[in-house]
Amino acid sequence: MTPATPAPFTADDYRARMDRAAHAAAEAGLAGVLVAPGPDLVWLTGYRVPADTERLTLLVLAAGQDPVLVVPTLEAPDAARAAGAPALTLRDWTDGVDPYGVAAPLLAEDGRFGVSDNAWAMHLLGMQRQLPDTSYTALTEALPMLRAVKDAAELERLAAAGAAADATYEEIQKVAFAGRKETDVAGDLAELLRRFGHEQVDFTVVGSGPNGASPHHEAGDRVIEDGDMVVLDFGGLKHGYGSDTSRTVHVGEPTAEERRVHDVVREAQDAACRAVRPGIACQEVDRAARAVITDAGYGEYFIHRTGHGIGVTTHEPPYMIEGEEQRLVPGMCFSVEPGIYLPGRFGVRIEDIVTVTEDGGRRLNNTPREMAVVN
Amino acid sequence: MTPATPAPFTADDYRARMDRAAHAAAEAGLAGVLVAPGPDLVWLTGYRVPADTERLTLLVLAAGQDPVLVVPTLEAPDAARAAGAPALTLRDWTDGVDPYGVAAPLLAEDGRFGVSDNAWAMHLLGMQRQLPDTSYTALTEALPMLRAVKDAAELERLAAAGAAADATYEEIQKVAFAGRKETDVAGDLAELLRRFGHEQVDFTVVGSGPNGASPHHEAGDRVIEDGDMVVLDFGGLKHGYGSDTSRTVHVGEPTAEERRVHDVVREAQDAACRAVRPGIACQEVDRAARAVITDAGYGEYFIHRTGHGIGVTTHEPPYMIEGEEQRLVPGMCFSVEPGIYLPGRFGVRIEDIVTVTEDGGRRLNNTPREMAVVN
Repeated sequence: MTPATPAPFTADDYRARMDRAAHAAAEAGLAGVLVAPGPDLVWLTGYRVPADTERLTLLVLAAGQDPVLVVPTLEAPDAARAAGAPALTLRDWTDGVDPYGVAAPLLAEDGRFGVSDNAWAMHLLGMQRQLPDTSYTALTEALPMLRAVKDAAELERLAAAGAAADATYEEIQKVAFAGRKETDVAGDLAELLRRFGHEQVDFTVVGSGPNGASPHHEAGDRVIEDGDMVVLDFGGLKHGYGSDTSRTVHVGEPTAEERRVHDVVREAQDAACRAVRPGIACQEVDRAARAVITDAGYGEYFIHRTGHGIGVTTHEPPYMIEGEEQRLVPGMCFSVEPGIYLPGRFGVRIEDIVTVTEDGGRRLNNTPREMAVVN
Repeated sequence: MTPATPAPFTADDYRARMDRAAHAAAEAGLAGVLVAPGPDLVWLTGYRVPADTERLTLLVLAAGQDPVLVVPTLEAPDAARAAGAPALTLRDWTDGVDPYGVAAPLLAEDGRFGVSDNAWAMHLLGMQRQLPDTSYTALTEALPMLRAVKDAAELERLAAAGAAADATYEEIQKVAFAGRKETDVAGDLAELLRRFGHEQVDFTVVGSGPNGASPHHEAGDRVIEDGDMVVLDFGGLKHGYGSDTSRTVHVGEPTAEERRVHDVVREAQDAACRAVRPGIACQEVDRAARAVITDAGYGEYFIHRTGHGIGVTTHEPPYMIEGEEQRLVPGMCFSVEPGIYLPGRFGVRIEDIVTVTEDGGRRLNNTPREMAVVN
């Protein structure tokens, strides 16, 4: 595992992204886009704020207008060092000044704006108060596909993150499970992800026995026992792009029922991956997985959507869920992760990141999906 | 450093806090409070969400109504394990359902609500769309003092966090500075904070030489040199409560000017700490520090407010800033952290957490404030 570090994104890359966002907003009938600290801002400017706080940082994008980043004076030097800074104007404000008053002149007084999903409500309310005739919509609602289609440089990073997660899974099978706490194995996962190049670990789910039946259980004090099914679901960021993979392993020999449930999930996951191709609706991916599980009689135990997009975050549009009619486009990347959760007993989930190619889908996780037996 | 672990907060503690919040909202003319994942939710219920995502988690509080926590079905088991869970009702929603439709019946249709500052804009917009006659205000604007006055159990935790930060400062003076990167020293600070009981490290500022002149500079690749001033500012959470302290050290012997600037900041910080007592306005604390720095001719180089509250976060109301007329009340806890920043040259900041007592203020950081000489 000695992959080359990818070439950093340049100010021109960020300029092109900001330009694309401003034009997409105009096409969607919006006066512009208000971008808050977080994944949107990182993707558009390369700027990661020192901390996301009550102090307003806001990028204002509008077609035909140069991008302006409103920042606290304190953090202006940090913002100025961002790779995308040469492609925008900084406008700083000092403690004691009303930052919404600083941002307001950059907005059309009666415009409708897309705003980052995770912008603080406090900041949205500040803008609404300052400009009562403006209106707002969540960015993923207005422009759900803004970050969804990845270019070659992004796919290279996502593939590297996937390979690092795969290496983590190969190694974790060698550690002791029985007799150790879930949190101990979770610690091993975090260490492995970092060893294989992740700069950020976002989650290390270790759901043993009945804990595996709670899909979002992280890892707890439960001591793993011989005979346990154990759901492993882990990921984070490498070179700024996300990994997210799940495998379900078994401590010692599984029972016939455990094998059956695992086989159903594996078949469902495979069916969903095979369904991926340009032009189909996201919900078709969900349906492909759900049909297998429902047909096997476990439909009521598959209690979440089949997948979510991934990029500079580990959770973003598009979502593979019933009702999502967005068509797949080459370059989209998302998880395919069906599961079966038997309350009080055990759970099984299998997950790969898949990218849409010109004529199908390509998995970015490639470790065996058969149930591994661990110690 | 073998302090006892404080007794955990109980469901009754959380019930009392929720009740207090609902009544404070009613007194402020609000129909209720909408609480998002983050410090408000932790303080009110003890519930830390597995991840703060696009999936709605929302606590609805209103006087005369039982608290209800809207949660994704996936995360309901996590929420049910929170210490405050027995004091509230869980209402879960499953992927595919409109979560705002689930929350809406809990709100008065034309009510005005306080909403957590850091609630996602997407969720606020979802509620505004679902209930167009409701209106909203940021919680810190409506009820700025909700979490500001700490009780004895909270003060015990804040004092323990302060003592751990002090122990960290004592130890960091023993490490090598010259010839190492800022990030190396920052790593040492993080390790020490954890060693002394922090479960979360929020920031480890190491601003050497000219980097010290950017107050929010974190730590970079700059190699620290003999003759550098180095601003250290670090903190995080211990037993769920925050630490935050700054000292400015010098590698080798300081110049006369460096000594003078450091003396001015030390005098300013001391003056502000001595100003703390019940009944004075927050802005008086800022003025006390600023007067010293201005009189010494450095007024234009003190470019931030003097302090911020601290509790389950390391940044919260009350703010020690000109224009803040909120009166100090015994039990409030906040930072006192004046600084002087000479662009391109160096910076100095000295910071303690101070709690308001019946007749004055008490520092929770007690390491020497004289400029330490390090190697």
